[in-house]
Amino acid sequence: MTTNTTNSIPAGFEIRRIESRDYAGVTTALSGLTTVGDLSQSQFDDILAYWDTQLLPGRTDGARSYNTSVIIESATGRVSAVGTVFVEKKLIHAGGLVGHIEDIAVNPDFRGKQLGKVLINHLSAQGASLGCYKVILDCDEKNVGFYEKCGYSRAGVEMQVRM
Amino acid sequence: MTTNTTNSIPAGFEIRRIESRDYAGVTTALSGLTTVGDLSQSQFDDILAYWDTQLLPGRTDGARSYNTSVIIESATGRVSAVGTVFVEKKLIHAGGLVGHIEDIAVNPDFRGKQLGKVLINHLSAQGASLGCYKVILDCDEKNVGFYEKCGYSRAGVEMQVRM
Repeated sequence: MTTNTTNSIPAGFEIRRIESRDYAGVTTALSGLTTVGDLSQSQFDDILAYWDTQLLPGRTDGARSYNTSVIIESATGRVSAVGTVFVEKKLIHAGGLVGHIEDIAVNPDFRGKQLGKVLINHLSAQGASLGCYKVILDCDEKNVGFYEKCGYSRAGVEMQVRM
Repeated sequence: MTTNTTNSIPAGFEIRRIESRDYAGVTTALSGLTTVGDLSQSQFDDILAYWDTQLLPGRTDGARSYNTSVIIESATGRVSAVGTVFVEKKLIHAGGLVGHIEDIAVNPDFRGKQLGKVLINHLSAQGASLGCYKVILDCDEKNVGFYEKCGYSRAGVEMQVRM
């Protein structure tokens, strides 16, 4: 793969799978991205528990479909960034896997530390290690340059319909 | 929602969830779209069985994450089109659901019957009935006009990295 992985996590930060205690930090970070709405700690925990049950097929390593990671400021435990790579099982590419990067948010208090790039590189590498033949994401035109620096190229047009 | 649902399925065709007996027709249709590779009947059946196990959370109606439909020529049982709406459970939008339309293919023998539009309308409506707040898809620039006729609007840029 061509993903740029030269950016490692800065000193004083760590990256790990999302946990229940990340509720406040994650919902705050995601609020900077889009509508989070009225999501209680209990509903948050239910979604994490659901994600944990969604396993990839034919694997003995417990590999999951939903892989949400947080970057934590080690000294304080604060959530500085959050993002997901969801892995889809397809018929095409001989029953191949495709990673979908979703809902990337960096807490504004932690901007300028390249945490967004660290997070994308982590999620891309996770998709590769799970066996994806590609990882895709949708972004605004203004963020294309950022994702190109993370090793991504333009692939198409995202279309949507709202219900 | 604004999806155009004025196109109903033409006489002599039916639409239903994918089944094991669709193996040859589905792999043929998908081969016109992209690389299908060496996918045996047994592997095909294993993927369908896996998809059947992936249920949406907190539901008593057996609603599934993977929803792949085929349009069948009733008289012959031939697969004339295939497509999927995958439903992702998110934290944002109060734990909302987003539908991802994937891997749309129409068998060339059945072009000119608006089966592609019928299929997209079906998958969009299925996403709505499953509770999605939006349905998204990625397409080539040349297909934007087709999806606009199905009620979709431009939303962003698809980026990818290949492994």
